[in-house]
Amino acid sequence: MANDLTDPTEVAPVDAVLASFARTPDPRLREILTRLVRHLHAFVVDIEPTMAEWQAAIDFLTSTGHACTDRRQEFILLSDVLGVSTLVESVNDRRPDPAPAAAAAGQDRTESTVLGPFHVVSSPPRALGDTIDLTGGGTPCLVTGEVRTTDGQPLPGATLDVWQADDQGFYDVQQPEEQPAGNGRGLFTADADGRFRFRSVVPRHYPIPTDGPVGDLLRATGRHANRPAHIHFIVAAEGHRSLTTQIYVADSPYIDSDAVFAVKRRLVREVETVHDPAAAARHGLPSPFRQLRFDFVLEPAEEAGA
Amino acid sequence: MANDLTDPTEVAPVDAVLASFARTPDPRLREILTRLVRHLHAFVVDIEPTMAEWQAAIDFLTSTGHACTDRRQEFILLSDVLGVSTLVESVNDRRPDPAPAAAAAGQDRTESTVLGPFHVVSSPPRALGDTIDLTGGGTPCLVTGEVRTTDGQPLPGATLDVWQADDQGFYDVQQPEEQPAGNGRGLFTADADGRFRFRSVVPRHYPIPTDGPVGDLLRATGRHANRPAHIHFIVAAEGHRSLTTQIYVADSPYIDSDAVFAVKRRLVREVETVHDPAAAARHGLPSPFRQLRFDFVLEPAEEAGA
Repeated sequence: MANDLTDPTEVAPVDAVLASFARTPDPRLREILTRLVRHLHAFVVDIEPTMAEWQAAIDFLTSTGHACTDRRQEFILLSDVLGVSTLVESVNDRRPDPAPAAAAAGQDRTESTVLGPFHVVSSPPRALGDTIDLTGGGTPCLVTGEVRTTDGQPLPGATLDVWQADDQGFYDVQQPEEQPAGNGRGLFTADADGRFRFRSVVPRHYPIPTDGPVGDLLRATGRHANRPAHIHFIVAAEGHRSLTTQIYVADSPYIDSDAVFAVKRRLVREVETVHDPAAAARHGLPSPFRQLRFDFVLEPAEEAGA
Repeated sequence: MANDLTDPTEVAPVDAVLASFARTPDPRLREILTRLVRHLHAFVVDIEPTMAEWQAAIDFLTSTGHACTDRRQEFILLSDVLGVSTLVESVNDRRPDPAPAAAAAGQDRTESTVLGPFHVVSSPPRALGDTIDLTGGGTPCLVTGEVRTTDGQPLPGATLDVWQADDQGFYDVQQPEEQPAGNGRGLFTADADGRFRFRSVVPRHYPIPTDGPVGDLLRATGRHANRPAHIHFIVAAEGHRSLTTQIYVADSPYIDSDAVFAVKRRLVREVETVHDPAAAARHGLPSPFRQLRFDFVLEPAEEAGA
């Protein structure tokens, strides 16, 4: 707007707002609020919202809050579709370049990705080899791998908290009527060699929930709502930094246009087809069977920084 | 963070997010979201939040949403204490400097201020001279003035939607048990000369609601929660731009440190003490009585811009 202003001090309240936060006892909170106020005011000045647009923003935030329950987190979903979750996650996952030798030996730590909105219930503890598919739908899949340190040592007793949508693309908490609680979830403990295995179904791409305000946003902007096929993991071991990540299926639709911007190329794997009748029988699977293999490399907690 | 990054493209998802909004059909929505994403990502990069801080932000927004009901708007309160409401309001209230002659003649339009979170119910229509104080508390006060145009013509039939906290600093909707609905509220219609008058109580400073997330924010930052004494108005007349504003009491505590940054000096008035027994009798008030006088000047709708 090129107009001269009747009272410029009154259209630039940012200094008054910053001053109001100047006595915040916690210096980190003061820093965050100072930056927030600067960006928020700059955003408003940039777009010069009408009062109706401001009200629409208030209404959108309110609806997003009201859509949040103990089983649904619409603000995390909003953070996800705006790329903020991945950005926050990446900022926390930044490290110096690994030493060339370690990188060549394949011992670089596994990258993390966003938690997502569906880790809202505890995963039931299960024994190695158990299935997390309680409904028998979809194509059976063996998921195997090992958990080790950046210096190549196995991590016996590492825990793997796993959650996954069913073959129709829904998590148990989204369908409390249709799915038993704990379907697609399991808490596993790696064996004495740091190895894990469990059965599931080949993951499928699926849309994030679109029946709330975030869905309205995607529709209004012509964006699709789909995530490529993946399995969530939180991998933890004594003395090591916990890893929150997702493993992606290489040939999944939307692998290049994830609605929540969370795909990292080093987390993408083929789901192999294994022709090994003995292994199939050992795992209680038909032959041939599908297998997804991924090794998790955790870094020592002391290298993780703050 | 000065570290080299393992994969710089993965810590700068902003371009992918901007690209995802590139096909938004509505160009205004596309512009708003583009600016939002740029500022939001820049904010995150600036502060480098920990995952715990990100989660705290999600929790704060969720609590704020859950605090919103049909009688309470915690997101407006948040917008208020961050100075955003006043900034949006001021951006929309900007005009070219008035012609010197009009300014000298006192015909500059009345400035607007924020709506605030308590205009959540309709004000009951009342006759000129009625009181909006249904509980008989506090010091009676006559509120009078006229509504006119920027060229000095009265606006007969202009409507004045009025709302005010009681003498304890609470709006009716905050105390549904203690106050009758409509206490402190009234919808008045100016007479044939554009004049209005109603009775109320002398407004008192009061804290904004501090029992929700916004109150937690104020406590954590050492800010007081008080607003100086004021009365809210929405003044409307055919062919004129509606005016949302507040009239402030000159000697009120917090007049220089409003928790929501909404005070404008030209909206501040003394509450006079009137020694006029005849006028007191005419208005049904004790003598002497208190009087707050304010004239509202509305601009034609066609000067209001977009």
